[in-house]
Amino acid sequence: MKAYVIQGGFGLDHIVEVDRAIPSPARNEVLIRMKAVSLNSRDLGVIDGYYNPNLNTPLIPVSDGVGEIVALGEEATKFQLGERVSGIFTQSWKTGEATQENWVSTLGSPLDGLLAEYVVLPEEGLVRVPGHLTDAEAATLPCAGVTAWHAIVEEGKVKAGDTVVVQGTGGVSLFALQFAKLQGARVIVTSSSDEKLERAKALGGDFGINYKQKMDWDQAVLDYTEGHGADHIVDLGGGATLNRSLSALKVGGQISIVGILTGASVEGLDIIPAIIRKARLQAINVGSRTMFENMNAAVSHHRLHPVVDRVFPFSQAVQALQYMASGSYFGKICIVF
Amino acid sequence: MKAYVIQGGFGLDHIVEVDRAIPSPARNEVLIRMKAVSLNSRDLGVIDGYYNPNLNTPLIPVSDGVGEIVALGEEATKFQLGERVSGIFTQSWKTGEATQENWVSTLGSPLDGLLAEYVVLPEEGLVRVPGHLTDAEAATLPCAGVTAWHAIVEEGKVKAGDTVVVQGTGGVSLFALQFAKLQGARVIVTSSSDEKLERAKALGGDFGINYKQKMDWDQAVLDYTEGHGADHIVDLGGGATLNRSLSALKVGGQISIVGILTGASVEGLDIIPAIIRKARLQAINVGSRTMFENMNAAVSHHRLHPVVDRVFPFSQAVQALQYMASGSYFGKICIVF
Amino acid sequence: MKAYVIQGGFGLDHIVEVDRAIPSPARNEVLIRMKAVSLNSRDLGVIDGYYNPNLNTPLIPVSDGVGEIVALGEEATKFQLGERVSGIFTQSWKTGEATQENWVSTLGSPLDGLLAEYVVLPEEGLVRVPGHLTDAEAATLPCAGVTAWHAIVEEGKVKAGDTVVVQGTGGVSLFALQFAKLQGARVIVTSSSDEKLERAKALGGDFGINYKQKMDWDQAVLDYTEGHGADHIVDLGGGATLNRSLSALKVGGQISIVGILTGASVEGLDIIPAIIRKARLQAINVGSRTMFENMNAAVSHHRLHPVVDRVFPFSQAVQALQYMASGSYFGKICIVF
Amino acid sequence: MKAYVIQGGFGLDHIVEVDRAIPSPARNEVLIRMKAVSLNSRDLGVIDGYYNPNLNTPLIPVSDGVGEIVALGEEATKFQLGERVSGIFTQSWKTGEATQENWVSTLGSPLDGLLAEYVVLPEEGLVRVPGHLTDAEAATLPCAGVTAWHAIVEEGKVKAGDTVVVQGTGGVSLFALQFAKLQGARVIVTSSSDEKLERAKALGGDFGINYKQKMDWDQAVLDYTEGHGADHIVDLGGGATLNRSLSALKVGGQISIVGILTGASVEGLDIIPAIIRKARLQAINVGSRTMFENMNAAVSHHRLHPVVDRVFPFSQAVQALQYMASGSYFGKICIVF
Repeated sequence: MKAYVIQGGFGLDHIVEVDRAIPSPARNEVLIRMKAVSLNSRDLGVIDGYYNPNLNTPLIPVSDGVGEIVALGEEATKFQLGERVSGIFTQSWKTGEATQENWVSTLGSPLDGLLAEYVVLPEEGLVRVPGHLTDAEAATLPCAGVTAWHAIVEEGKVKAGDTVVVQGTGGVSLFALQFAKLQGARVIVTSSSDEKLERAKALGGDFGINYKQKMDWDQAVLDYTEGHGADHIVDLGGGATLNRSLSALKVGGQISIVGILTGASVEGLDIIPAIIRKARLQAINVGSRTMFENMNAAVSHHRLHPVVDRVFPFSQAVQALQYMASGSYFGKICIVF
Repeated sequence: MKAYVIQGGFGLDHIVEVDRAIPSPARNEVLIRMKAVSLNSRDLGVIDGYYNPNLNTPLIPVSDGVGEIVALGEEATKFQLGERVSGIFTQSWKTGEATQENWVSTLGSPLDGLLAEYVVLPEEGLVRVPGHLTDAEAATLPCAGVTAWHAIVEEGKVKAGDTVVVQGTGGVSLFALQFAKLQGARVIVTSSSDEKLERAKALGGDFGINYKQKMDWDQAVLDYTEGHGADHIVDLGGGATLNRSLSALKVGGQISIVGILTGASVEGLDIIPAIIRKARLQAINVGSRTMFENMNAAVSHHRLHPVVDRVFPFSQAVQALQYMASGSYFGKICIVF
Repeated sequence: MKAYVIQGGFGLDHIVEVDRAIPSPARNEVLIRMKAVSLNSRDLGVIDGYYNPNLNTPLIPVSDGVGEIVALGEEATKFQLGERVSGIFTQSWKTGEATQENWVSTLGSPLDGLLAEYVVLPEEGLVRVPGHLTDAEAATLPCAGVTAWHAIVEEGKVKAGDTVVVQGTGGVSLFALQFAKLQGARVIVTSSSDEKLERAKALGGDFGINYKQKMDWDQAVLDYTEGHGADHIVDLGGGATLNRSLSALKVGGQISIVGILTGASVEGLDIIPAIIRKARLQAINVGSRTMFENMNAAVSHHRLHPVVDRVFPFSQAVQALQYMASGSYFGKICIVF
Repeated sequence: MKAYVIQGGFGLDHIVEVDRAIPSPARNEVLIRMKAVSLNSRDLGVIDGYYNPNLNTPLIPVSDGVGEIVALGEEATKFQLGERVSGIFTQSWKTGEATQENWVSTLGSPLDGLLAEYVVLPEEGLVRVPGHLTDAEAATLPCAGVTAWHAIVEEGKVKAGDTVVVQGTGGVSLFALQFAKLQGARVIVTSSSDEKLERAKALGGDFGINYKQKMDWDQAVLDYTEGHGADHIVDLGGGATLNRSLSALKVGGQISIVGILTGASVEGLDIIPAIIRKARLQAINVGSRTMFENMNAAVSHHRLHPVVDRVFPFSQAVQALQYMASGSYFGKICIVF
């Protein structure tokens, strides 16, 4: 089978296509023929060596994907041949609260990822995929979808009539927009592009703020909410945005910190505004299998479609990663096999 | 002004129309010209003496209504003349958890209710009314609306993709259906009438069960949910339904007990099914002003319209109560002034 | 090795001592030489056929115990030889919320229990035992301890200064008393025996009510709390006590229903008092491994000692069960090997 | 009566003793003869103009105190003459969630504070004081006590066996230590003084870290917790400590940000450690009257004594403030009248 690996150094130059034997599922494992993967900023961070300078290579990158079960290991009884499944991002985080031990079980680093024609995963590390989704759409869910679901629904407990601010129009942001709408919230989107703001409104966004034109977007949020501030803000900008997020928050509001996708440090976090807002800052680190299953129930019930920016063929995986690196997309970038 | 009072005994025969002086607002109070009220089973319970056999009469019945502010007492600054407001059911329950002291501040017993052309209420006991609602629609919210909101959203924390069961098609049930839909849930409705089930589906209900034809409706819920059971059940039948609600519940699910509208006792509550479901039974007693305001934010944002079964003129208030007593309605019964 | 099994029918007459081969641990399993077990009412329910009339026999009864690891199966790396461990009651409930699938993994029915000299269990179904406990003390924790911890701490979130009512002086009740004291609460104990009330006070109980002498113990709770009622009530009596528990509860209070140990049905549960108290009734079904570990951290930190009523030798296991059936004990009954 | 006011500028030089008429209680208000006040860093911030450069002066400083009711305004029925009461810090925050409107109702800025022989407050802005406390002890509770209670109990939900880190030995820190012990937790204290660490241990602290000697105190916390990290950290250092707090936290742990007492900005808050810990950072802004009452119930039940560092007479109020400014105290500084 064909696979891509990080090999001989970091950076996109060191993504190499290799030929490997199709792996065999051991006890409680299944063999999956991959049908699509989606890309996250984290995948670039892994490839660039930024995420883990001591990465063991060769490593198959990319954490998120969907495939079809083509062989069952001994005692693997949870799924049937032919079922379409996704691997969960944190393979050992099934349910409940995360533990430190879970973090070493993430796909695409330190475990091999899914940018290969066949992969073997434990059946306990998989979920069924909503039937109405294309392969590319389904591939977008494990990291970006679950992160947004975790932030908005599981920790955020966003409710009908709440006001939610979503920063930008990347994968997590658009999922956060869509899930906040499912929960009945009013959604404000920020972007540097009027065109993207229009597309976000077509997805249900109620109000758009172009932060290039209106740098004090926090004031625009306060104006739009008649001075109350937002109930929930999904902060993706990290260092660049956290102080403004605090300023735009209502008293008793919550900020989801989803910075693993940006990885920044906050210069000069102001504590007094945090106190005055009685702010809760909740860091989000993808989520558990139970959260993934809860999200899939909602996605299925509402026949929700994730936003796919562009689909590349498997042969152009490196181009897909380059496109990701360019930073100019709306929703998710996928690769189909 | 004209008002109806309970006088000289209990029962609809003792609802008497009287002439009274228009009351004057004291400090922090406002005078409201009533525009509409809505009826709840509880109003009948008060009139029949079932709710409180030691009721001080004459008492103006009916807890829920909407009116226009026509005079402001000294230091009353929260509202302006002409604003449309509703009284909160539990006048002293502003926010946070209820206390025992709150229960003596409910409108329509022991405090005078709203079935009068003018009423005086403290400004702290009022909320603004969503602007898109007719007077009759707005009048339905204080008791039935807030009870359903409290059950589904504040205590239930129903989320997208959850399955909610709503029993019957009275006021609380239809609000519960509508709010569960706002939160993204899948809603099952039970009724003894196929025609009402169809109307409930038109409001967004996903599945209807005619419990006259299918008495083991709990089994129908289990079948519809592929054996998992419902995440949340709004139980209005009390004695007649609680054991079946437990049987239809998922492990870890929640039942909202909204029995003040039925007032029944449960014969033979089975504890073992409760344990096996790890059930949470949460009694609901209307709700606070904050909950009312949260609900109004959602109602406004979604331009949701409460379901009004029938509207009577003020002169036919007794007929409206008789119609309520007949038990055959879909949504709320209102009286307009 | 020697073991006791339920065989040839139900009832204590059908507890038979048998000789069996020492089992071998399979992959991810360990072999445990049992050192002590403790008894629960549920064990009698299983033996009497009340708990599951279709029980597959022969079955080794008794869910709770402690032993020493004497052999490790392939890939079993979590524990070392010689470590002292307890099996968790619900073997497959590791963390997070329970699911329906978990209930078929409980020890002592339907799975074989621990009344045997050696048992094999998956390493994932075990917890380490606090070092300061005797074997008999440690054996009391899996069902009674975890149930009380789950009720008081995990679901109850009892806090310093709260008032907690604990019914009776059996195993769960005394654990609930001890854990409520660890959380800083004030604890009221009810019992039919003044002598047991004195012993409960020696364990930290603040106030005792002899419900034989004072049948309206709910009124005594209201008097003691100056009319406010209790914040949390651990209800073990089921049918006989639930209405009085509702009456003794504060507005917004919580009742833990731990009825699997009594198995009763409630005749005439009054819903109106539940509504007036805005009561939450939370059924408790033992708990997860995470809860067990959390409890052990608290037991270790406080060097808390469970209350052991009486210890029998393994050869007198039937007498121990008969003593349990007599119903007159204070704390837990244990068997040591 | 005598009172101190901030007048003619900022700084301790502008604390002036003045003679004023004893105020009269209006409707729903009471007159209180002050018996003791306690000082908080915030009081210095107000006096120095740091807290609010646009402060309206003359203003009576100091938010926290206790006194005896000596006159009742019209319709003031909640308390009786002679009762000992404290004002709540945020006068309008009675219960439930805070709102933006609450922040303009804090004592000692913008409202007049308590450094006067007599003050008038609304009865709704008062709580009864635990009877076993001296006046000085009781005076310590409104700001420092409620802040710590809010952090540890109401938001922190610290439970028995948890590990809590408390930074320093000022007023909030020692209350956090004491309340964490009431909830059954294990408490780690950090300080720059071995002597203060010993005194903290005498109050129940389990482990002390001298951060002068061991600058990487986060590593000491990890070592002490066998690598797991702390469940809850009360962060008072703000800018200087937040990154280390994140490093010392367990996965899924919580940090209470109580920075209003330090007022710092965090230079270079690292987001990735926050994500890796799935950290929750909860800003705390004193608390509601309900929280104060809950705390008092716990303080009374446990006959807990706040730690008073030093007591000054009213005539030496400025010296007391100077002593506060010196920064070298253990617990609270009080002034008695």
